Amino acid sequence: MKLGFIGLGVMGGPMAGHLAKAGHEVTVYNRTRSKADAWVAKYGGHAAATPAEAAAGAQIVFSCVGNDDDLRQVTIGPEGVFHGMSRGSVFVDHTTASAAVAVELESAGRDRGLACLDAPVSGGQSGAEQGILTVMVGGDAAAFEIAQPVIAHYARAVTLMGASGSGQKTKMVNQICVAGVVEGLAEGLAFALHAGLDAKKVLSVISKGAATSWQMENRGDTMVDGKFDFGFAVDLMRKDLRIAMEEARANGAELPATALIDQFYAKLQKQGHGRMDTSSLMKLLSDR
Amino acid sequence: MKLGFIGLGVMGGPMAGHLAKAGHEVTVYNRTRSKADAWVAKYGGHAAATPAEAAAGAQIVFSCVGNDDDLRQVTIGPEGVFHGMSRGSVFVDHTTASAAVAVELESAGRDRGLACLDAPVSGGQSGAEQGILTVMVGGDAAAFEIAQPVIAHYARAVTLMGASGSGQKTKMVNQICVAGVVEGLAEGLAFALHAGLDAKKVLSVISKGAATSWQMENRGDTMVDGKFDFGFAVDLMRKDLRIAMEEARANGAELPATALIDQFYAKLQKQGHGRMDTSSLMKLLSDR
Repeated sequence: MKLGFIGLGVMGGPMAGHLAKAGHEVTVYNRTRSKADAWVAKYGGHAAATPAEAAAGAQIVFSCVGNDDDLRQVTIGPEGVFHGMSRGSVFVDHTTASAAVAVELESAGRDRGLACLDAPVSGGQSGAEQGILTVMVGGDAAAFEIAQPVIAHYARAVTLMGASGSGQKTKMVNQICVAGVVEGLAEGLAFALHAGLDAKKVLSVISKGAATSWQMENRGDTMVDGKFDFGFAVDLMRKDLRIAMEEARANGAELPATALIDQFYAKLQKQGHGRMDTSSLMKLLSDR
Repeated sequence: MKLGFIGLGVMGGPMAGHLAKAGHEVTVYNRTRSKADAWVAKYGGHAAATPAEAAAGAQIVFSCVGNDDDLRQVTIGPEGVFHGMSRGSVFVDHTTASAAVAVELESAGRDRGLACLDAPVSGGQSGAEQGILTVMVGGDAAAFEIAQPVIAHYARAVTLMGASGSGQKTKMVNQICVAGVVEGLAEGLAFALHAGLDAKKVLSVISKGAATSWQMENRGDTMVDGKFDFGFAVDLMRKDLRIAMEEARANGAELPATALIDQFYAKLQKQGHGRMDTSSLMKLLSDR
């Protein structure tokens, strides 16, 4: 299948790579051209000079960029993919962005005969590299049927959650849950250290029961060791929590603990730790 | 082995039952005498008129009562077990109580030639009934060696965490982690409902990844259904968080989110929901 892919960062690069390895004809675009050239050298396919050029003739065009503004630029912007896509083709956006921009693009796409799916992912860089992401999709069911088997090249679960924006909203729920888990874990482990306990021994005991979580099992020991130079960055988490809190403002949901934890992430950014893993909340509560 | 057991509530009753079923000679005491008689009718053994009488001649005496004051009463109080226990015997307390009272009793016991272990449990009523509790122990290693194989009749894990009070402090870490997880989950699910998502479908997707937890897997669906009439009660959680926050005050740990969540539990109590499951934080954020 002829495909376009916009944005070859730590997520988009390997995702597009899985499409090429599966035999699809992929044309890529990246803001920094050298990254696109490096990608082509590794996977084959073509590098385009603009998003519109990458989209020309493609049945599905994917994007994985930074934020709402980046996303508008590569779609409805002057050289955006919407100017290159053919009627009846499908646009799949993997950026974690607002539900509002998803609805805005879906509407703009419909006017041009394009179907748009918001499809944020979870699973991180290693999930992208291994091709085992979880993809939460919002949009039209017919477009989903077309895109789903292609997305499956880099995902182990691809689920249609509802109308346009529903993928983004599902991702927000995920991040809200993560924030609570990580802060509880950070407070618990910092308390353990202050109490003079062997924190790793505590983890080995309580991880068998009702307190356990993916975060406890995968980040507990590294938090005790004070290792935060890996994983999902504080800067990205802050972006995601901002989107979630904006959505909550619009839909009337209350996020009292999430709002507090967002402030803690703000403090980490201010201290220069924006690129550390989200588990670095631990740093604010302990000498780790 | 000749054993004493003080406190036959929903936890202590089945725990003492496992000891009797294993062939030990168990003498029980309960503040409400009829419960002790019912226990004897079910499991055999003897009912005593006072804690001291239940402790007479026992090699190990167990307790599982309500709080610090109850614990003092049944140990160092006028008819407490310390007045009945023989030198060289071991006292094992399964109450979730303060680390301070554990240290206090350990010291008082030492003066009388008694070893004391603080040994709070996790796993809840069903864990007690099935005999698969997790037991976190603080105190003397030699006393632990004596008690461990007996405790194992109702536990799947019995771990010595350190000196007197360490069992209680480990339990506090557990409850701090649970509080964060549950509030994050409640905010996430309430957000999902406000956003018009199918919250159970959201759970089925995000429970595969970094947001997942025991609470999400075991309480997520019941929270969406608004079912809170089971499980670990808000009143008990508030008691445990009070102990944790007092300990943090003493050891210098900060618990900002835990303190906030404790206030939410206070609100639930005020609304008359003190006997609901801890997952009822959901009620404060949604119409469930």
